[in-house]
Amino acid sequence: MIIVTRRGVTEAEIDHIRERIEGQGLRTHVSRGETRVVIGCIGDEARLQHLPLGTLPGVEAVHPVMKPYKLAAMQFAAEPTRIPFGSIEIGGPGIVVVAGPCSVENMEVMKETADFVSSKGARGLRGGAFKPRTSPYSFQGLGKEGLEILSEVRRHSGLPVVTEVMDTRQVELVAEYADALQVGARNMQNFPLLTEVGRTHRPVLLKRGMSATVKDLLLAAEYVMSQGNMNVMVCERGIRTFETATRNTFDLAAIPILKKETHLPVIADPSHGAGRRDLVHALAYAAVAAGADGLLVEVHPDPETAWSDGEQTLDFQEFESLMEGLRPFAAATGREMA
Amino acid sequence: MIIVTRRGVTEAEIDHIRERIEGQGLRTHVSRGETRVVIGCIGDEARLQHLPLGTLPGVEAVHPVMKPYKLAAMQFAAEPTRIPFGSIEIGGPGIVVVAGPCSVENMEVMKETADFVSSKGARGLRGGAFKPRTSPYSFQGLGKEGLEILSEVRRHSGLPVVTEVMDTRQVELVAEYADALQVGARNMQNFPLLTEVGRTHRPVLLKRGMSATVKDLLLAAEYVMSQGNMNVMVCERGIRTFETATRNTFDLAAIPILKKETHLPVIADPSHGAGRRDLVHALAYAAVAAGADGLLVEVHPDPETAWSDGEQTLDFQEFESLMEGLRPFAAATGREMA
Amino acid sequence: MIIVTRRGVTEAEIDHIRERIEGQGLRTHVSRGETRVVIGCIGDEARLQHLPLGTLPGVEAVHPVMKPYKLAAMQFAAEPTRIPFGSIEIGGPGIVVVAGPCSVENMEVMKETADFVSSKGARGLRGGAFKPRTSPYSFQGLGKEGLEILSEVRRHSGLPVVTEVMDTRQVELVAEYADALQVGARNMQNFPLLTEVGRTHRPVLLKRGMSATVKDLLLAAEYVMSQGNMNVMVCERGIRTFETATRNTFDLAAIPILKKETHLPVIADPSHGAGRRDLVHALAYAAVAAGADGLLVEVHPDPETAWSDGEQTLDFQEFESLMEGLRPFAAATGREMA
Amino acid sequence: MIIVTRRGVTEAEIDHIRERIEGQGLRTHVSRGETRVVIGCIGDEARLQHLPLGTLPGVEAVHPVMKPYKLAAMQFAAEPTRIPFGSIEIGGPGIVVVAGPCSVENMEVMKETADFVSSKGARGLRGGAFKPRTSPYSFQGLGKEGLEILSEVRRHSGLPVVTEVMDTRQVELVAEYADALQVGARNMQNFPLLTEVGRTHRPVLLKRGMSATVKDLLLAAEYVMSQGNMNVMVCERGIRTFETATRNTFDLAAIPILKKETHLPVIADPSHGAGRRDLVHALAYAAVAAGADGLLVEVHPDPETAWSDGEQTLDFQEFESLMEGLRPFAAATGREMA
Repeated sequence: MIIVTRRGVTEAEIDHIRERIEGQGLRTHVSRGETRVVIGCIGDEARLQHLPLGTLPGVEAVHPVMKPYKLAAMQFAAEPTRIPFGSIEIGGPGIVVVAGPCSVENMEVMKETADFVSSKGARGLRGGAFKPRTSPYSFQGLGKEGLEILSEVRRHSGLPVVTEVMDTRQVELVAEYADALQVGARNMQNFPLLTEVGRTHRPVLLKRGMSATVKDLLLAAEYVMSQGNMNVMVCERGIRTFETATRNTFDLAAIPILKKETHLPVIADPSHGAGRRDLVHALAYAAVAAGADGLLVEVHPDPETAWSDGEQTLDFQEFESLMEGLRPFAAATGREMA
Repeated sequence: MIIVTRRGVTEAEIDHIRERIEGQGLRTHVSRGETRVVIGCIGDEARLQHLPLGTLPGVEAVHPVMKPYKLAAMQFAAEPTRIPFGSIEIGGPGIVVVAGPCSVENMEVMKETADFVSSKGARGLRGGAFKPRTSPYSFQGLGKEGLEILSEVRRHSGLPVVTEVMDTRQVELVAEYADALQVGARNMQNFPLLTEVGRTHRPVLLKRGMSATVKDLLLAAEYVMSQGNMNVMVCERGIRTFETATRNTFDLAAIPILKKETHLPVIADPSHGAGRRDLVHALAYAAVAAGADGLLVEVHPDPETAWSDGEQTLDFQEFESLMEGLRPFAAATGREMA
Repeated sequence: MIIVTRRGVTEAEIDHIRERIEGQGLRTHVSRGETRVVIGCIGDEARLQHLPLGTLPGVEAVHPVMKPYKLAAMQFAAEPTRIPFGSIEIGGPGIVVVAGPCSVENMEVMKETADFVSSKGARGLRGGAFKPRTSPYSFQGLGKEGLEILSEVRRHSGLPVVTEVMDTRQVELVAEYADALQVGARNMQNFPLLTEVGRTHRPVLLKRGMSATVKDLLLAAEYVMSQGNMNVMVCERGIRTFETATRNTFDLAAIPILKKETHLPVIADPSHGAGRRDLVHALAYAAVAAGADGLLVEVHPDPETAWSDGEQTLDFQEFESLMEGLRPFAAATGREMA
Repeated sequence: MIIVTRRGVTEAEIDHIRERIEGQGLRTHVSRGETRVVIGCIGDEARLQHLPLGTLPGVEAVHPVMKPYKLAAMQFAAEPTRIPFGSIEIGGPGIVVVAGPCSVENMEVMKETADFVSSKGARGLRGGAFKPRTSPYSFQGLGKEGLEILSEVRRHSGLPVVTEVMDTRQVELVAEYADALQVGARNMQNFPLLTEVGRTHRPVLLKRGMSATVKDLLLAAEYVMSQGNMNVMVCERGIRTFETATRNTFDLAAIPILKKETHLPVIADPSHGAGRRDLVHALAYAAVAAGADGLLVEVHPDPETAWSDGEQTLDFQEFESLMEGLRPFAAATGREMA
C-alpha cells in the first residue's frame, strides 16, 4: 500500500497515519517529495484491507501494490490449469465448444440437439434447468425434471453437461447431476453461492457479472478456490454499457487480459455477448482469435419456438456453419478445435 | 407489442409473424405505411414474452407496449404504500432516517451508535451481520451473533432494525431477528432470494443493483411482491459508470422516476452512492430535495476503526450536522423529518 | 509519480527506469518492500507526462501524485471565482437561474420568453443560434440572425445572454454579441475551440462531455484558462450510462466534488440532465441542495412547437412553479436566489 | 413513427396528437388495443423529427420506424464502397494495415518507421501533426511542419498518409498534404468539422466517439456524406465504460454490426482500443476475425521515447510479428492482407 498525502499535511497527521499502519504489524517508509509526502507500507498488505486509510486526515490517495487475489493469479500455478470435463479437458491445447439450448425444455429437444451438436464437434452440452429470469412471470425452468433430462441425455450422447445453479440449497442436487456447475452473471457476487460451489468437487463455470471488472471476476473465482475447489473456468459474456445495438457489450479485451492474469481457462459466450443471432459467428471467431479456451453457444432445433433466449440462439444450420468456420481461426492461433 | 417490419418484407413473412402471435391467442392488426408494415398485437402481451419475435424473418424492431411489472406499478395501488417499521411508517409524510455502522462489530459499538443516532432523530438502526465482501479474505460479518446483538440493541434503544440477508438458507433466521430484510445491490437479481424474502412477513429493503435499470429494479420488487409480500422499499444507491471520483454514480433522477412509476417507498443511500464521507451531506440533501421517503446512512463512533466501509461512514459529529441540515430541505419539499 | 515494479524486477530494470526519470531532471527514491520495489519521483511531475513509464520493463503500475490541472484547482485561488454576467455575478452567494428556449427561433418567442422568465426571477437568457444536432437533416440554428435577435432581446429585457459557439471561426462573431460563450458537451474536448474561447474576454460556460470525468472537465477548463481567460463556469448536464429512463444520467455528486476541487462556479443543467420535462423540478431542487451556483433551464412559451428539445422544455407555468419551488431550497443551503 | 398512448388517454388527447402529426403533412392510423391506443404515422418521418411528440398529453412512448441516416445506410449503395487510398483501395477484398507513430516527431523517425512498416506489409502511414491532448501542457503536435514531414515521407516511401484534422480552419491545409483526413474520437460530433471535411475531396477516416453509439457514428458519417463526400471510413477504437483494465473498452461487436448497417469500410484501431501494447495483437486478430476491412496501428522505433501514446505503441519487432500473425486470420475470413 502506498499512501500519498495532501499538500500541507502536518507531521502529526503523518505520525497518525504511520501509527495506524504499524498497529497492524507492518513497517512504514516515509519519502518526502517537493510538495508531497509519500508513505510506503512494508509487510502483509492484506492486514490493511479493512482500514479506511483514504479517510485519515492528511491522506489524498491510497494505491494498493498487491493484487487482491492469490489463488487465481497467474503466479500461483506453474502452468495453465486444465479442467476435466467428461472425457476431455478444458484449458489444454484444444478449443472446446459447449452448445445447447438456453433452457431444458423436454427430452426430445435435448436429445435432438445433443446428437446434432455432437456430430458437428461440440464436446459438451449446455441447458438450464433453473433459469434466472428478469420477470417473475417468465418460465423459470423445469427444475429437477430438467436435471434428470440432462442426465439421461448425457448417457445417451456421451456429452458432459454444464448447467446453472442459482440457490445455495440446490448446489448439492445440481452437483449430483451435472459435470460442471454454472454460476451465472447475476450471481457472480452471490458470495454464499460461490462458497457453496467451492465446497463441491465439480468444476465451476463462472460468468462475469454485467458490471463486474476483470478484477471482480477473479475475486469471485478466488471465493470458489478459497474453499478448495481449484477447477474454475471464467467466462466473458458481455458487460452493460450505453450501447443498445447489442444486448451486452462483449468485452473482447477481457480474454487476453484474463489469459495474462490467471492460470484458469477462459471461456467466451458469444450468444449472450451479442444477444443477436446474426452476430454470434463474428464474436465466436473473434473470441478464438483473442485466445479463448472454449465457447458456450446457444443452439436449438427451432429458435423461434425456444422457451427463452430465442433471439440469440442458432439453429442447426447456423451451428454447423459456425463449427466449420471456427477451424481455420483455431489453426491461426496455433491450436485446434478439441 | 408492436412489430415493425423490414423494408421489403414479403407477404409470406407477414403471415408467418401473424401466425406466431395469433397462435398465442392474441389478435393482430396490420398497418401499411409508405415503406414499412407495422403489426400491432391486441390482447395479453405477457403471452408473447418468450417468443423471439425479433428474430422472425422480416422483423426489424419490436416495441413492447405494456410495462413488464404489474404489482409494483403505480396503477396497482390506490395510494402510496406505507410500510410499518417498528412504531413508525415508511412512505408516509415523514422522511425516515435509518443509520448505523456498516457491520455489526460488537454490542458496545452498536449500543453507543443506536443511542446517539436515536437522540439525533434517526428512526431505525442499520448494521450488517452477514456481509457481502468482494474478497473472500475480508471480514464476512458476525453472522448469528450479529443478529443477536441487533436484537438486544433494538430492545435497548427501541429502534427497529434492518439488516442484510444474502442466502436463501438464512432468510428464516434473519426474519426472526430483523424488522426489515435488506437485499443488497449484488443480490438484486438473486431470484431465489427475492422469492424467499417474498414469502416472509417482513418488509424488504431492496437495493438497486450496480448495473440495474430502474425497470430492472421494479421487476426485482415484482418478484418479492408476486410471492405475496407487498411491503417492499426500493433503494437508490448508485450505479457503475466510467466516473472514478466516486465509488458509484448516484443516479439522483431515479428517485423522482421511481416516485412516478411505483407506489412503493423510495429510499436513498448517500453513503454507498458517494463512497466518500465528505459527499454524504450533499447527496442526502439532494435525495430529500428530489423526493426520497427515507435515507440509509452509515454512522460509526470512530470510522477510522470501523471493520468495513470506513471511507464512507460518518462520525457522530457529522451525523448530527447531517440531521440538522436535513430539516429545512424536508420542509422545502412540504414534508418533515419523521 | 510513484512507480510500482513487478515481482521479480531485476536491478538492471530498476536502473533503466531510474535513468529515464532522472533524464528528465527529476530525482528518484527507491523503497524496497517485501515483494516489490517502489520508485518515487521527486521534482516536476509534468516533465514525465509523455514518458510511457507503464511500458518500461519491470513496471507494474504508475500512480501520479499531482493533479494534472493547476489554474482550475482550488489551491490556485484565494477565494471562489465570481464571474461577471451582465449586471450580476455568478459564483457569489446568490444562486443564478439562466433560462430560455433551446434554439433561438424568432424575435417574438425570444422577447416573450425573456419578459416572462425575467419577471419570475431569471437573471440571464439562454438560446442557441448555432445548434449541434445529431442529424445533419435537423434544424441547425439561425446563425448570425439568431445572434442579432439575442442582442436585441438583451437590450429589450436587460437580461445578459449566453449562447453556444461550435466553430473556431465563429468565436469572434459570437463573442461580439453574447455576454457568455457556451461550449457544449460535444465540444468539451474540442481543444482548438477551448483555446480560442480562452483568447476572448467573454466568460465561458463549459459543459461536461457525455463521457468526461470530473477530471477531464477540469482539464478542459484548464485549456481555456491557460490562454488567459479565467472566467470559466463548469456545468454538470448528465453523462452517458446504460440507464435509458433518462436521456442522460445526471451525476449529482459531480456538483459537490467540483465545489471541492475548483474555485470556479458550478452550474447545473437539469433540462439536459433529465431529458424529460417532468423531472426538471426534482433535478433542479437537488442541484441547489447539492451546492450548485446556478441553473440553466430550457423554457419556451409552447414546448410542443419548440424547434428543438421540446421534450425537456418547461412551459411558462412550469417555470413559474420551479422558481417558486427553488426559494426554500436555496434558503436551506444558507443562500438565496440571485 | 409509432405513438403509444397512456392507459386512459382521452379522445381529445388523441385528436390533438393526430393534428400535430397531420399538420406536418403525414397521415395517421389509429389502432385500438385492449388497454392502449396506438397511432401510426404514414409519410415522411423526417418531418416529425423536431416535434416533441413524447411530451404531448396522453403519450407514453414514441418509436421511430425509419433509420435516421440514409446515405450511410446499407440500402443506399448497390455494393460496398471502396475508397481510393494512394495506389490501393480500402473496402475491397484486401485487408489494409495503416501504421505509424502517434505523433509526427521528426523526419528521421518517420522515414525509419515508414520504411520498416512498408517492408512488412503496411499499405499506409499514420502520424499526427495536430494532436488532441487532454492536458494543455502536453505536446500539441508539430503542426504545419509535421504535415511537410508527412508529405516528404510519402514521396520517399510511396505510402499514402492519413493524419488528423481538429480545426475547421485547418481543413484546407491538411487536405493539401494528406491522402486521408482523420476525424478523431473527441471530434466525432464536432459538426462544423464534419461539414468542412465533407466539402473536401479527401477520404475521411471517422473515429467513433468514446460515448457514441453505432447509430451516432453513422449519423456523424452522414454529416460528411451530406456535403457530397462519400468516401468515409468508420473506425471502432473503443468506448468508455467502468472497466479500468483497459484504457477503453473495445466494442468488437460494432464491427459486424457496422458491416451490416453500412456500405462504408470499417476500420479497427486496436492500439487505442486496448491502450496497452501487450493486447494489440489479440485485438487486431479479433478485429480481422470479426470482419474489419483495415487496421490502424501505432508503431514507433522506440516506444519508450515516443512523444505520445508510448504505452500502446508497438516496436518494430512487435509490428513484424503482428503482420505475420495476421495473415492466417485474414485467410480464415476468406480474405487476404492487402
